[in-house]
Amino acid sequence: MIETLSPKKELEDLQADLREVQELLGRHRLVEHLVERQEMPKHELVESLVHRQNVAELRAKLDSMHPADIAYVLESLPLEERLVVWNLVKAERDGEILLQASDAVRETLIRSMDLQELVAAAEQLEADEIADLAPDLPEGVIHDVFQALPVEEREQLRAAMSYPEDAVGALMDFDVVSVREDTAIETVTRYLRRFDALPHHTDQIFVVDRDERLKGVLPLSKLIVSELEHNVGKVMVSDVVTLQSGDKAQDAAQAFERYDLVSAPVVDEQGKLIGRVTVDKVVDFIRSKSESELLTQAGLREEEDVFSSVWASVKNRWSWLAINLVTAIFASRVIGAFEHSIEKLVALAALMPIVAGIGGNSGNQTITLIVRSIALGQVQREHAKKLLAKELGVSLLNGLIWGSALGLIAYWLYQKVSLGLVMTAAMTLNLALSATAGVLIPLTMMRLGRDPALGSSVMITAITDSGGFFIFLGLATLFLV
Amino acid sequence: MIETLSPKKELEDLQADLREVQELLGRHRLVEHLVERQEMPKHELVESLVHRQNVAELRAKLDSMHPADIAYVLESLPLEERLVVWNLVKAERDGEILLQASDAVRETLIRSMDLQELVAAAEQLEADEIADLAPDLPEGVIHDVFQALPVEEREQLRAAMSYPEDAVGALMDFDVVSVREDTAIETVTRYLRRFDALPHHTDQIFVVDRDERLKGVLPLSKLIVSELEHNVGKVMVSDVVTLQSGDKAQDAAQAFERYDLVSAPVVDEQGKLIGRVTVDKVVDFIRSKSESELLTQAGLREEEDVFSSVWASVKNRWSWLAINLVTAIFASRVIGAFEHSIEKLVALAALMPIVAGIGGNSGNQTITLIVRSIALGQVQREHAKKLLAKELGVSLLNGLIWGSALGLIAYWLYQKVSLGLVMTAAMTLNLALSATAGVLIPLTMMRLGRDPALGSSVMITAITDSGGFFIFLGLATLFLV
Repeated sequence: MIETLSPKKELEDLQADLREVQELLGRHRLVEHLVERQEMPKHELVESLVHRQNVAELRAKLDSMHPADIAYVLESLPLEERLVVWNLVKAERDGEILLQASDAVRETLIRSMDLQELVAAAEQLEADEIADLAPDLPEGVIHDVFQALPVEEREQLRAAMSYPEDAVGALMDFDVVSVREDTAIETVTRYLRRFDALPHHTDQIFVVDRDERLKGVLPLSKLIVSELEHNVGKVMVSDVVTLQSGDKAQDAAQAFERYDLVSAPVVDEQGKLIGRVTVDKVVDFIRSKSESELLTQAGLREEEDVFSSVWASVKNRWSWLAINLVTAIFASRVIGAFEHSIEKLVALAALMPIVAGIGGNSGNQTITLIVRSIALGQVQREHAKKLLAKELGVSLLNGLIWGSALGLIAYWLYQKVSLGLVMTAAMTLNLALSATAGVLIPLTMMRLGRDPALGSSVMITAITDSGGFFIFLGLATLFLV
Repeated sequence: MIETLSPKKELEDLQADLREVQELLGRHRLVEHLVERQEMPKHELVESLVHRQNVAELRAKLDSMHPADIAYVLESLPLEERLVVWNLVKAERDGEILLQASDAVRETLIRSMDLQELVAAAEQLEADEIADLAPDLPEGVIHDVFQALPVEEREQLRAAMSYPEDAVGALMDFDVVSVREDTAIETVTRYLRRFDALPHHTDQIFVVDRDERLKGVLPLSKLIVSELEHNVGKVMVSDVVTLQSGDKAQDAAQAFERYDLVSAPVVDEQGKLIGRVTVDKVVDFIRSKSESELLTQAGLREEEDVFSSVWASVKNRWSWLAINLVTAIFASRVIGAFEHSIEKLVALAALMPIVAGIGGNSGNQTITLIVRSIALGQVQREHAKKLLAKELGVSLLNGLIWGSALGLIAYWLYQKVSLGLVMTAAMTLNLALSATAGVLIPLTMMRLGRDPALGSSVMITAITDSGGFFIFLGLATLFLV
């Protein structure tokens, strides 16, 4: 019978495993605790039959699990229990699991290992995988691993480590299978049959000339349906999406999405084949990119281990709070400048946060849309006027609708027609301000070559807060006080 | 020579194409404009040599482009120009392009087509693709397409349309190649060679028994390296990630990510093979899901065509603004309750938005982390206490740091020690409130079986705004006024 692993069942299994591990850990701790109270010497605990049995059970459980699943279990465990589990994992799987764990959790695992263990873990991996771990590893580890590698892999590791994180080179691996154009299909199939297994995600093999220059690709699905006596050159596809190691990873991801690729060759400036990118790396890239966007929008510097210490969390979050504090103090000083008016008409104090809040909300809608369209390459500089006109139109219409509603509410609350009118006017003006800033900030960032997403939400909120207070209190001072 | 298409060059090419199309459209319009001014009858315009030449050029350009690239060009064009380009695209590619276009842009394209064109477009597609378009198509189209399909595909379409959008069934296609367990590898290769081409993303063929029940899979990379005389049963992999059509698409995406899959079989309750899911669909799903998260966070109901009309945009954005208005009015009424205190000490009006703002920011950090960990399945209900303790710790520490800083600033601005102390206390309390709400809201949503992400940002901001005003003004009323 086939073992049907539906993802839902997978998840349930994992959670059951997790509970089992936690239970075993609990028993483990219970034994430790008893030993402690009876002041039994430590070595007796280690010898204790119960303890050994539990540890063996736990180890067997872990040995049967996929490295990605172990990484998931480690991520779902509070730090102390996480390290107990980590120490029970077979050493030869350390490298694989470190690769699969999230950055924040990986850091805690690496911190618990000594130099020797880390070198051993890294040596199990391929050059491109070691390069992925490298930023988190202590200096000495990389040096030792370097010495231990054969020359070819050493070169690959050097190359892989030289690419910036957002370049195609950082997604690339070196597992390419290549053949010559003038080979017969039959020879190719015989050649391939000598492999124990083709590299993962091999949906095509690469066709190169004598100088390793890429001439085309031969998809396996095409190889399989080709006549055996034909030559590779006759069957291969030469119109192929090809990456360069220095290309932006973001662009490569878009090409994978747009053309539904499983793998793509990477060439150097001379057109020589140096590696390939596979869709699993692209999926990881897309996921981590979208996650960092979400985190940035919420004002988090980087991914956070939910079980990390209070102090680590404070450090991760402080920079954004500090910026927010400065903008809030600025907005507060804008209000301060109108204290005289508020003293005379205290209703202003109650109404002003509404103007600022709705403006911020509307501005965030605009800036999110524009940032997204820039990222997709749909918006060019020449569209600025058209977009500004549209967003101003939206904000004026919204200003009339919501501004009037609020004006009526203000009138109803305070029985002052003039206050209602000022409210409506301030809402409309602040929405127009938010639309203008929402279009111009990202377009300006793009023109300056910066990432339009970075800090966009903070900036727009700062503008609509201070601007909203200024417009509302200013109008009120002019017409009401 | 190989045609090297780096994604960067792709994008530049596309943008050049786009400019070219726009230029041609410009000329086209210029001619139209001249014709209009000279009141030349419309049919003479169509006959005009210049016009015909431009249109031919444009059409040739479009014919040479990949459907995904045409969709991109259409998305990057304002509505009027978009429809001109759309009318020039070869009719037999309409279906492909509609599939690739974003929801908002697809709608504008479909609205420009008549029933007959739509039926023709749909008929070019496979059952699972028609089902993807179905929600956007007028009722009559689906009916006509249904009539025109052969029985087997009709059944497939019926099945594909029956799955909810977030189920595996909605990602599934029916392009499965299957063989029996007792077939020799050589027979399989001969069988496959009879195909013109294998279905896209065929990295494995499926092994089924007489009743179409899935027994295992045969990866092509394994098929290629296997001895010809072996049987499929000997070579096949039987421990395989298998989906059910009713599983959550989200879970399937996680399985693809975790186990680096290219395709996965889909079975029914009896274990019969009914289709497969491929990684390109999963990538699209992940992308659209992360986009809708970003949009929801910014308060947009759905994806918006940046060039859509003012009215369409207002409709897309109004619901969130309305909710925001209600929460803002509530917060305003909280302030209203303390108008008496503000009248006595107007500094309160200037300082209160700081307390509310920082609380909102901190609460959004907490809730984003918790929502994300829930989505990854890392957080269970039993972690609630641990997480709450940690987040409260973070908020107290932040309250001491930032609260003290603000207390000092308040003292410096208004020369009142008691005002500074109230500021510090209010900040600390509001941060604690934001941490509590940030942990409890998503955990409660999870317990109720709701999506914890939905509206989380609005809710937390509403709580920290009203809460912040209440705490600060309340403390001030007790101790200062």
